[in-house]
Amino acid sequence: MFITFEGIDFSGKTTQIRLLEEYLKSAGEKVHIVREPGGTAISEKIRELLLDKNYYEMCSEAEIFLFSASRAQLVRELIKPMLNAGYFVISDRFHDSTTAYQGYGRGVDLETVRKINELAIGDVIPDLTFFLDLDEVEAQKRKDLLPASKLDRIESANLEFFRKVREGYLYLSKSEKRFRLINGSLSVEEIHNEIVNEMNVLSRVKN
Amino acid sequence: MFITFEGIDFSGKTTQIRLLEEYLKSAGEKVHIVREPGGTAISEKIRELLLDKNYYEMCSEAEIFLFSASRAQLVRELIKPMLNAGYFVISDRFHDSTTAYQGYGRGVDLETVRKINELAIGDVIPDLTFFLDLDEVEAQKRKDLLPASKLDRIESANLEFFRKVREGYLYLSKSEKRFRLINGSLSVEEIHNEIVNEMNVLSRVKN
Repeated sequence: MFITFEGIDFSGKTTQIRLLEEYLKSAGEKVHIVREPGGTAISEKIRELLLDKNYYEMCSEAEIFLFSASRAQLVRELIKPMLNAGYFVISDRFHDSTTAYQGYGRGVDLETVRKINELAIGDVIPDLTFFLDLDEVEAQKRKDLLPASKLDRIESANLEFFRKVREGYLYLSKSEKRFRLINGSLSVEEIHNEIVNEMNVLSRVKN
Repeated sequence: MFITFEGIDFSGKTTQIRLLEEYLKSAGEKVHIVREPGGTAISEKIRELLLDKNYYEMCSEAEIFLFSASRAQLVRELIKPMLNAGYFVISDRFHDSTTAYQGYGRGVDLETVRKINELAIGDVIPDLTFFLDLDEVEAQKRKDLLPASKLDRIESANLEFFRKVREGYLYLSKSEKRFRLINGSLSVEEIHNEIVNEMNVLSRVKN
């Protein structure tokens, strides 16, 4: 089963992925976690480029192509073989991030984004996508707890950008059946319980 | 004016670009040469990744996205400002290489290639594209003069790949008005003279 986590930065994805991993492992499942961009030798090189703050001049078009290159390699070299070997694969961000960040956030034409996503992921479509929805102002408050020097090139964007990204996710959560919108301002435990419930519902439907 | 050179590897593009550069400079023109992939700090980083033979596992999809990322950045950071400043810009390869190599050569869906190219280059379309056409067997003979260790990841592909790439270029030379097919087996001087003639014809039309 292939599960992805989406949401604006600081919505709590990483924590929830760790909790879900523990839960699945204690139930005897084989689990593999990937983070985007990255996960293979080539994808990690691309990650360095994407998050490097020295490249402030990077254009939106280069950005979408680099994310997609990293993802295309990750899908073929790692995610697909792992799924075939019976693993639960959980990805911290996937192609919906490109729709939300580069499409809605940076304004790249949405039909072009769709074509690019199709080429990047092929037939590897998530079974379930957890969207941790957090208001961009709330996310900003969490971000303010960190020193600016700790933020990468994309996390350093402004509030208006994250508002548009969130709008993209809200649109996707209405149009994509695999999306589960979860209120990101709930407690860590409440969110984890919702996620586990959804997993159980899906596995009952599958069996 | 924006001029691109295309053709399979070892078709003699680099030599002809140098000769055209000299010709234009001696006529008092400002000329800037770029090579793909590369030309900006970001694009040169991507070039390293693309041509590194250690990354033999790179999938076609990652390849097309990386070339396009490099090009998108080159267009916005360098080619467009140079053209606006009155330079002749000559590029050693441009978006037609993606159609020929990744579309025809590697089999990426051609409609998707078209969308990707559109996003990468925007409104920066070459005024003239010189396609130095060389039979893949002839190119192979030139390649055999070099030790295999001198070839990069893409130059190391096989004859059948280059046959398909050439087929792509031949198709483009029929469908794109800006294409000038030049027989790459002519002498260096003969090719240069043809190129200069075409340049003069075009500048007469423009004036």
